[in-house]
Amino acid sequence: MKPHGPIPPGYVADTDGMLLIGGDRADALADMAGDTPLFVYDSAMLTARVAEWRAAMPDAVQLHYAMKANPYAPLLVFMAGLVDGFDVASGGELKAALASGMAAQDISFAGPGKRDRELDAAITAGATLNLESAGEAERALSIAANLGVTPRLAVRVNPDFDLKGSGMKMGGGAKPFGVDANEVPPLVRRLIASGADWQGFHIFAGSQALDAAAIADTQAQTVALAGRLADEIGATPPLVNLGGGMGVPYFPGDKAVDAATVGIALADTLAQRSASLENSRFAMELGRWLVAEAGVYLTRIVDRKISHAETFLVTDGGLHHQLAASGNFGTVIRRNYPIAVMNAFGSEPVETVSVVGCLCTPLDRLGDQVALPRADVGDLIAVFLAGAYGASASPASFLGQGSAREMLV
Amino acid sequence: MKPHGPIPPGYVADTDGMLLIGGDRADALADMAGDTPLFVYDSAMLTARVAEWRAAMPDAVQLHYAMKANPYAPLLVFMAGLVDGFDVASGGELKAALASGMAAQDISFAGPGKRDRELDAAITAGATLNLESAGEAERALSIAANLGVTPRLAVRVNPDFDLKGSGMKMGGGAKPFGVDANEVPPLVRRLIASGADWQGFHIFAGSQALDAAAIADTQAQTVALAGRLADEIGATPPLVNLGGGMGVPYFPGDKAVDAATVGIALADTLAQRSASLENSRFAMELGRWLVAEAGVYLTRIVDRKISHAETFLVTDGGLHHQLAASGNFGTVIRRNYPIAVMNAFGSEPVETVSVVGCLCTPLDRLGDQVALPRADVGDLIAVFLAGAYGASASPASFLGQGSAREMLV
Repeated sequence: MKPHGPIPPGYVADTDGMLLIGGDRADALADMAGDTPLFVYDSAMLTARVAEWRAAMPDAVQLHYAMKANPYAPLLVFMAGLVDGFDVASGGELKAALASGMAAQDISFAGPGKRDRELDAAITAGATLNLESAGEAERALSIAANLGVTPRLAVRVNPDFDLKGSGMKMGGGAKPFGVDANEVPPLVRRLIASGADWQGFHIFAGSQALDAAAIADTQAQTVALAGRLADEIGATPPLVNLGGGMGVPYFPGDKAVDAATVGIALADTLAQRSASLENSRFAMELGRWLVAEAGVYLTRIVDRKISHAETFLVTDGGLHHQLAASGNFGTVIRRNYPIAVMNAFGSEPVETVSVVGCLCTPLDRLGDQVALPRADVGDLIAVFLAGAYGASASPASFLGQGSAREMLV
Repeated sequence: MKPHGPIPPGYVADTDGMLLIGGDRADALADMAGDTPLFVYDSAMLTARVAEWRAAMPDAVQLHYAMKANPYAPLLVFMAGLVDGFDVASGGELKAALASGMAAQDISFAGPGKRDRELDAAITAGATLNLESAGEAERALSIAANLGVTPRLAVRVNPDFDLKGSGMKMGGGAKPFGVDANEVPPLVRRLIASGADWQGFHIFAGSQALDAAAIADTQAQTVALAGRLADEIGATPPLVNLGGGMGVPYFPGDKAVDAATVGIALADTLAQRSASLENSRFAMELGRWLVAEAGVYLTRIVDRKISHAETFLVTDGGLHHQLAASGNFGTVIRRNYPIAVMNAFGSEPVETVSVVGCLCTPLDRLGDQVALPRADVGDLIAVFLAGAYGASASPASFLGQGSAREMLV
C-alpha cells in the first residue's frame, strides 16, 4: 500500500456516503453533465479562498489571478468578480480574460515568447505587457508607435534569488524569463524616455512552495530589489507585482501554507520599504493556490480486474485529463494525489487497489496501490486538487479520447 | 554543452543550407502553412519505412499501424494504403480509422477501459475487439447479442515476460492490460461456445526497444506462449498479433534497431512454431517505428536573449506541442531530442544555447545547452522525431496557445 495525498478541507458526504460538491451529490452532478469524466469546480470554495487571502494579507496588496491555472470560461467570469486583476500568458489567454469582463487595465501579460501579433493585441486593448527582454521592449515600442498608442509597459525582472522549496524555480541564475536585474534600470529609463506608460515591475521568483517563512523571505527580497531598482532609476514604479509562490498540499506529509504568517511578514516588509516605493501599489499573483482545491475530477469505473493477485480499477478517465496526477508532468518521483471512492466517501479502506485510466499505456495511473473502500464497475472515483493545471494542462487529444466535461457549481 | 540525439537519416539541406523535407525547403513549407509552429510529415519517408520493414520481415507477417502514434487524418489515409491493418485505442480512433478507408475487418481495438458505447461501435462496424478482461468479454457478448451480430473477438494476453530494455513495459507481472495467461484458455473457450467469431490473440510485451536480440527473444517467447495457449484451448488462433517493440533512437548514444536481425530471427521462430499455429496468420503492430522519423516540428525564434552569460533562443513553440521532447512525458532524466537550425542545417556549431518554448514555465525547454550554428530572431528551429507522440500527445490548450499546424508532404 502506498499513501495518497491529503483530501482538501471542506469536502463532506451526505448520509448515504456520497461526496457533496458545492452541496450537490457527485452522482447527480455527473448525471447533470451527461457523462463522465467531469471536472467540477466549487464557486463557494473560490469565494472562501479569496476571502481567506484578503483576511490574511495587508489591505494595500492587490490580488491577481494567474489564469493559466484554470482558464475555464465560467470560472474566469466568476473570478473576475472576486480579484483585482488577471495575469495572462498568451494572446489566447488575453482574449479570454477580456471576454470574462476583466478590465484591460487590470490585465498583465507575461511570457518569454510573445509574438508581434500578441504584443499588438495587448497594446491595442490597453493591457500591461510585462516585458521579458530588451528585444521585446523594442518590438513593443515599435508596434505602439505604428498604432499611435501609448503602451502600458512593465518590466519583468529576473531576480538573483529563488524561492526556497518551490516546485518551480523562476529566478536565481540564468533564466529565459525576465531581464537580469542589473539591466533593468537602463531599460526602464529607455521606456520612460520613449514616452511609454511605465507600469512598474513583475518579479516572480518561484511557485508551489508550502513554507510560509520561505515565501515571506522571498517577498522581503523582492520588495528590497524593487526598492534598489527604483532608487537607481530615480522613479517610483506604479505597481510591484510580487509574483506568487503559495502552493497547495498534493502529497502525503504536505502541509498547507500558513497564509496568516505570510501576510504578517508582508505587512512588516511593506512598512520598511524604501522611500522610492512609498507610492507604489503591490500585488500578488496566484493561480494554483486560489483554484486547485476547489476542483474535483470525477471518473467512472469501467472495469474491475485482478492480475497476478493485484486489483485494478479501470476508469473512463486518465492522464489525458489529469496529466500531473498521473505523475507525468514536471515530477521526478510519482506520488499519489488525494483520491477517493465518491459513493463511499469517508468510509474506511478495505482493500489496496491501483486506479488506472482508460489509455493503453502504463503511464496512465491515477492511484498507485492506494487503500480504498470497496468499489465496483459504475462507481465514481474522485481525484482532488483538480482545479488547477488539470483540463487545460493535459493532452486531451491523446488516443482519441477527447476532452472532459467541466462544470462550475 | 550537452549533446543532442542523432538526426534521423535522410534529412539534407539545399545549397543555401536550408533543410529540405520531402524535397521542399522548410521555410517554404512554413510559408505555405501560413504560420509556425508546424509539424511536417514526409510521405516518402513513410513509404520507405514500410518498404524497409517488408524487406526485413517474413512475407507471412502482416504489418499493422498503431494509430495512437500519429492520428493526423491525411497521414491515416496515406498509411491505410501502405499497411495491412490499423490498431485503435478508443471509439474516437475507431471512427478516424474507418474514415481513413481502412476496412473494418482489418481494424483491431485494444484498451483497458472500453466503454459500452465503444464496444457497441466496434461490434456494429465489424472491427475486432482485443478483450482486456473477462468482465469486458461478458459486456461485449451481451452487447452483440442485443445487436444480433456475431462479434469479432480476440483476447489480449498479459504475458509473463516483458521486453528487455523497452521504454514501456506492457507485460511481466500485474498489469491493467490483457488477461493473465493462465486465464486465457477458459475465456477463449467461453467465447467460442458463445458463438463469437474468435479472432486469436494480442500479445504486447513492451515498446520502444532498440536491441534487436531482445525483440527477437520476446517474439520467440510470444509465439511459444501463443502455441501453448492454442494447444490448451484445442483451436487455432486465426491471428496472432505479436505486438510492437521496435523503437527509434532519440538520445545521444542510441542506435537504430536492426530490422533485418529481427526479421531473420522471426522467420526462424515461425518455422519452429507449434503445429497448433500452423494455419495462423501473424502480425506486428508498430506505431513509433513507422512514423517518428518522418516528422519534423518547425518553430520560429521570437527572441534571442542572454541571462547571466547564457544564451536563450525563445521560440513560438514548446511543450504544448512537443511534451515528450521537453522531457516531461514518461521520462525520468531530461535529455535532448535531435535539434537543428533549419537555415544552417549541417553547418558546424559555433555556440552553446538553450532553446526554450514560449510558455511561462521552466519546464518548457526543447534543447538544453545544445551546440548550434548561430541563429537569430526569425530563424527556424527543427526538432526531429516529431512524427510520433507529438501533436496528439501534448497539452495543446495549455496557456491558451492552441494547436500547431500539421502538414503531410
